[in-house]
Amino acid sequence: MISLKKAQELVWKNTHRLPGTLVRIEQAFGRTLSEDIKVRFDTPPFDRAAMDGYAVRAKDTASAHWSKPVILQVTGDIQAGQKKQWKLLPGQAISIMTGACLPAGADAVVMLEKIKVTETGRGRKIQIFQPVLSGENVSFRGEDLHQGQTVLKKGQVVNSAVLAMLAYTGKAWVKVVRKPEVAIMATGDELKKPGNRITGSYIYDANSYGLLGQVLKSGGNPHLLGIARDNISDLSHLIKRGLNYDILLISGGVSEGKYDLVVKVLRTLKVKPVFWKVAIKPGKPVFFGCRGKKLVFGLPGYPVSSYLNFEVLVRWAIAGFLGQPRPEPVAVTGILMQDVENAGDREALIRVCVTAENEENLIFPYPRQKSGILSSIVETNGLLCLEKGAQVHKGERVTVQLLNK
Amino acid sequence: MISLKKAQELVWKNTHRLPGTLVRIEQAFGRTLSEDIKVRFDTPPFDRAAMDGYAVRAKDTASAHWSKPVILQVTGDIQAGQKKQWKLLPGQAISIMTGACLPAGADAVVMLEKIKVTETGRGRKIQIFQPVLSGENVSFRGEDLHQGQTVLKKGQVVNSAVLAMLAYTGKAWVKVVRKPEVAIMATGDELKKPGNRITGSYIYDANSYGLLGQVLKSGGNPHLLGIARDNISDLSHLIKRGLNYDILLISGGVSEGKYDLVVKVLRTLKVKPVFWKVAIKPGKPVFFGCRGKKLVFGLPGYPVSSYLNFEVLVRWAIAGFLGQPRPEPVAVTGILMQDVENAGDREALIRVCVTAENEENLIFPYPRQKSGILSSIVETNGLLCLEKGAQVHKGERVTVQLLNK
Repeated sequence: MISLKKAQELVWKNTHRLPGTLVRIEQAFGRTLSEDIKVRFDTPPFDRAAMDGYAVRAKDTASAHWSKPVILQVTGDIQAGQKKQWKLLPGQAISIMTGACLPAGADAVVMLEKIKVTETGRGRKIQIFQPVLSGENVSFRGEDLHQGQTVLKKGQVVNSAVLAMLAYTGKAWVKVVRKPEVAIMATGDELKKPGNRITGSYIYDANSYGLLGQVLKSGGNPHLLGIARDNISDLSHLIKRGLNYDILLISGGVSEGKYDLVVKVLRTLKVKPVFWKVAIKPGKPVFFGCRGKKLVFGLPGYPVSSYLNFEVLVRWAIAGFLGQPRPEPVAVTGILMQDVENAGDREALIRVCVTAENEENLIFPYPRQKSGILSSIVETNGLLCLEKGAQVHKGERVTVQLLNK
Repeated sequence: MISLKKAQELVWKNTHRLPGTLVRIEQAFGRTLSEDIKVRFDTPPFDRAAMDGYAVRAKDTASAHWSKPVILQVTGDIQAGQKKQWKLLPGQAISIMTGACLPAGADAVVMLEKIKVTETGRGRKIQIFQPVLSGENVSFRGEDLHQGQTVLKKGQVVNSAVLAMLAYTGKAWVKVVRKPEVAIMATGDELKKPGNRITGSYIYDANSYGLLGQVLKSGGNPHLLGIARDNISDLSHLIKRGLNYDILLISGGVSEGKYDLVVKVLRTLKVKPVFWKVAIKPGKPVFFGCRGKKLVFGLPGYPVSSYLNFEVLVRWAIAGFLGQPRPEPVAVTGILMQDVENAGDREALIRVCVTAENEENLIFPYPRQKSGILSSIVETNGLLCLEKGAQVHKGERVTVQLLNK
């Protein structure tokens, strides 16, 4: 029996980054970058107006006062996207729109709210009642990004902000990592596929569907293989099919009961065991092995064990194949609302509800922690990981990982 | 100018739940339930072994001791999924596998590690060295879910845990809400589509792609309409197309500059304005209007403003159409690492980085908060919302919303 940390490192060591593939950025959401993105030009690409108003020379306005406004002659209009190169001479102002290129000679924009426009026989004039500071309402060239800067790194997941940034740098196509193909199978004579009628001693296969969602969430491409019965021929048949994919997830059949044949079949099919049993509760009897570059996980049949084994182990495999950094769940701290003790001999993964109230996070351990209680995953949003023998008390500040469901 | 809270309520009031559609559960990930899910039978559906071992009557083992073990006659094997109804008589034990139905008469399972098996001429016997408690290693019928219980409610997003639960209750098909169809267009003479070469005063349209990702993330179906130039005919053409969808998002063209024609065109096309300008920074000049059941948002052109307006307003529209509860971003509390003051006259949405360290969340305000700085969205993971005039100091505990990118 090895520690969770050790098990995670063993999974990580057995992964390799999958090759990249070029996709249009519209198709890239949720994928993982396979290339660094460098900025090819300063952004903004020119000094520009940050507000609608009038481009001015700040020093022309130095003497402005409510009682004695500075008067400037308006010599034109600059629209965003206009190609013409404008020039501003002393004593002049040019009407300018947000995002438009600042005319040569100007160093500030005075807002519409702060001026008065007068139309006279000799054209349009504006009155300014307060000095304008140099740089006021201007976005300077390169203020956001400068040419040559690496703005996104390979291994980064393309979320909505990254997508905006890709477009911002002008990319229409981007190289993303091929999705790991993940086969999912369940084992057990007692299982039926949802939608079928059940009676007597049958239950529905929930694990395959939980795993399907988890694979989608973590960026893999799931394939449901169905249910194998607890016999060698059925197991061999489905496991052989599963070994065509990058990762094979098998739920059920890895505890020590006499009918639990999965590990035996895996050995026959030349899957090299890396570990079998990790010191966590729930989820101890988890098997991990390799055949060449393909990885196999044997997950316990209990829905909570299967679910949590995915979160703490299988995610590491998918992240490794995607070239992402080691998975670090979002950690938050808060006040524990109830004493918790881990009297067992393994690290405990305790399901908790985290809520924010009056500027504080409150952490409520879920009352039913047995590994058969699927509700404990549905109704909670965090995991409190406690070393064996650890005690934490009501009112103490603790750190929990948010479940990324 | 109205408050953000008021604006959110106005958006919410103008939404209506879209109709439901039946999908296979394999296709339901990320969708929103359009029906309550009731449990049709107790889960587990029978008392079952929670461990591999031997089913026994607890009272038979009451006198067990290391020096004087209780000896029970083994009368059979029960495999998970087996149909046969077993019966356990006093003095007997039956070998049983995890998940299998407990035989009538038994009330506990003794683990393999705790017994010794002896094969004799008169069949198999086990020795038990310690009393077993009634209920030990048994999952009782209905322990997780009981018949008739509403286990999932309409409006719930189908995440991986919900997917497992749907399967667990036997559903193969589930009713989910139709996805809102969301049209996305950008406006501005200065914009070019990513992939094209740009020179001079052009910049790339980043907003359409950020919005695309945000729509996907929040459960809508995005449609990119492209870029409209700053003239009435181009705007009218694209806006008319956009009004065929449930929601139309327009970025750019809603500030007060003379070339900002979007609101004018919307009025011409009979879009009834609900509000225009919200007291937030960034993102003040946001327009919201309706035409029948269709909603239109005019978002500012600045990438940060467009992005945050989506988070604090458009999400409410999509959640409303999906029949979800009001969007409540995950809130976490932590220690502010720097003084922050909102000297402005509007609520400030300050981008921050939240990290957990030594059992505490640390909150670092991002140094560049201007609404042109897209990096401030890419590199942060939280929003600190400060009322106008508010001051918070280094070392104070504050609550931030996590950005759901």
